[in-house]
Amino acid sequence: MPEIIRAPPGLYGVGVAETSISRGAADGTLTYRGYPIRDLYDKASFEECAFLILEGHLPTRKELDDFVSRLRSLRTVPEDVYQIVRAMPRDSHPMDVLRTAVSGLGASEQMLSAKEQDYSLIAKMPTLVTNCYRILRGMDLAEPRDDMSEAENLLYVLTGRHPDAFELWAFERELILYLEHDLNVSAFTVRVVASTLADVYAACTAGLAALKGPLHGGANEAAMQMFLEIGSPERAASYLRENLAKGKKIMGFGHRVYKKVDPRAQLSKVMLKRLLEHKQADDKVYRLADELEHAMWETKKIPANLDFYAAPIFYTLGIPIETYTPIFAASRVVGWVSHYNEQLAANKLFRPDSIYVGQRDMVYVPIEKR
Amino acid sequence: MPEIIRAPPGLYGVGVAETSISRGAADGTLTYRGYPIRDLYDKASFEECAFLILEGHLPTRKELDDFVSRLRSLRTVPEDVYQIVRAMPRDSHPMDVLRTAVSGLGASEQMLSAKEQDYSLIAKMPTLVTNCYRILRGMDLAEPRDDMSEAENLLYVLTGRHPDAFELWAFERELILYLEHDLNVSAFTVRVVASTLADVYAACTAGLAALKGPLHGGANEAAMQMFLEIGSPERAASYLRENLAKGKKIMGFGHRVYKKVDPRAQLSKVMLKRLLEHKQADDKVYRLADELEHAMWETKKIPANLDFYAAPIFYTLGIPIETYTPIFAASRVVGWVSHYNEQLAANKLFRPDSIYVGQRDMVYVPIEKR
Repeated sequence: MPEIIRAPPGLYGVGVAETSISRGAADGTLTYRGYPIRDLYDKASFEECAFLILEGHLPTRKELDDFVSRLRSLRTVPEDVYQIVRAMPRDSHPMDVLRTAVSGLGASEQMLSAKEQDYSLIAKMPTLVTNCYRILRGMDLAEPRDDMSEAENLLYVLTGRHPDAFELWAFERELILYLEHDLNVSAFTVRVVASTLADVYAACTAGLAALKGPLHGGANEAAMQMFLEIGSPERAASYLRENLAKGKKIMGFGHRVYKKVDPRAQLSKVMLKRLLEHKQADDKVYRLADELEHAMWETKKIPANLDFYAAPIFYTLGIPIETYTPIFAASRVVGWVSHYNEQLAANKLFRPDSIYVGQRDMVYVPIEKR
Repeated sequence: MPEIIRAPPGLYGVGVAETSISRGAADGTLTYRGYPIRDLYDKASFEECAFLILEGHLPTRKELDDFVSRLRSLRTVPEDVYQIVRAMPRDSHPMDVLRTAVSGLGASEQMLSAKEQDYSLIAKMPTLVTNCYRILRGMDLAEPRDDMSEAENLLYVLTGRHPDAFELWAFERELILYLEHDLNVSAFTVRVVASTLADVYAACTAGLAALKGPLHGGANEAAMQMFLEIGSPERAASYLRENLAKGKKIMGFGHRVYKKVDPRAQLSKVMLKRLLEHKQADDKVYRLADELEHAMWETKKIPANLDFYAAPIFYTLGIPIETYTPIFAASRVVGWVSHYNEQLAANKLFRPDSIYVGQRDMVYVPIEKR
């Protein structure tokens, strides 16, 4: 029997698959298909970046127009999926609802080609995010607007008002940052499920299951709740001190790859400041976050991550907190679908070994003699 | 930056977690908590084995009685979950339906303690398997019978008739074999999702997503379809030859761990023969399977696996083919819950690395200039 290699816990530092989709590096750089995130953030649209991640190259005007119109034509979710959502308790966790809806959508779309399934899932996820929220709140369904971009449609339906150009720009930038990040745990889950040759809905349902976890997608909501709990910049340092002393986890800090700086947090921090200025709003949340970030760095040398600064941007835009993780999913599904396809292109079933540390040579004794 | 270890594709031979639940070894042995599967198969009940896997030791009479009555008290599925199932198209894949139902169940049971969630999920899974099937077929719901064991209740509802003692024995033996198997891909998926601290329903929904894949749980149904397609023992060798020549996968063969013999297939093979004798039925399916097994071993030195012999047992018992993979799930959920808990007991988020092989240093060009 061949010897088993013992992997580091959590597979840290173990390269489990080849990828050409994105690369986050310890020096604080992130690229999508080789393009620096800073350039894409400054210059590209959400749809352009999604196309880039899915197809591997930046679209021409014609390719982009086709992509956009294809997505828009696929946004409407079948009624039976809404029936599933309506059957769920009103106090359900939004991620449980979204996961169940995507799982159910898969049952309705088995007859589509693999490519059609990819596009349908990506197009319908934002619609599901908004309408699952609305159903839980007892509101009518919102028809997807085919005169709006993905970002505008999502922001418009979630807030109930038309964003101005800068608000839309800010929101779209954050969606771009959430699109994809290498083999994070949800993308890894998607690839493991893909390796069984299950369909893309099954794989992304599993991705959504992973994204619910507070150690993964749940962090942006938890970060915002923390800001609200702290309340003022003056309390940031003492909050940190007290909670670290209690051994509590401070939300929105730390990343598997970025040990000094998360480039997405940096971009979002600047955006938060600009957005507050644009709205002529109190910059308290910015000062609070900034204080907390500095205190954490002084104390633990742990940098703020994307969730830490995306959350107050969403909050400033008036987006309901319970939709932050679903919004993450509405963007990240593009990365998941790309990982699904990359896995299938050179597939090998994931079937690791375990290190057996349990009992051996036990002898069965009938129940009367136990 | 620390060097990245490049893992073998599919993580073959990589020990990714410690476990004390079960151990399958290349020499063709399998133990649950250190007890040989052959002993458990010959002597124990399904509930005894489930308790053993969950709790780590064989139950006393009192412990077993408590366990059994607890499971029986939890079998009834909330009506809102059935509403979810009723919303799904009648021609849905049974695994899509089961996955969606379990995902929805999770939304309804967020208020339960972790331990209650474990037991509820295990108790309700067989009920869901039977009633999802019945809803898709347009039949009334079957009330779980609290005077029946797990195996009897499942077999009774799926076939619509009371099994005799030997039929029940045979079916229960197969359920025991499906209970758990180390870090197969669904258990691994469950552990990856568990590592995010998502709840047990999220993790098992992801396990069900993996189990749908034809390279994993879908194999027992595919094996039975193959037997029906071959039709007679005389055609087995030529079927194999022709399909291997076409490069087609022959279902029910091969296993990551068992390279010479799958102990579960051996036990099931003997059981299939005994069951056919007991029912005084034509033993054609046995002879066909036996021929195919020998031909495959002669040609490729690949042994038959559990699915290969469990499928014709289920068929002989009159169980609808489309429920074979759901039945697998109804038993395997015990292993999944155990892996979920074992993961949490010494958790580290799964966050592997990738080997980046894509483009680098790309420069963004505005769309007008592409």
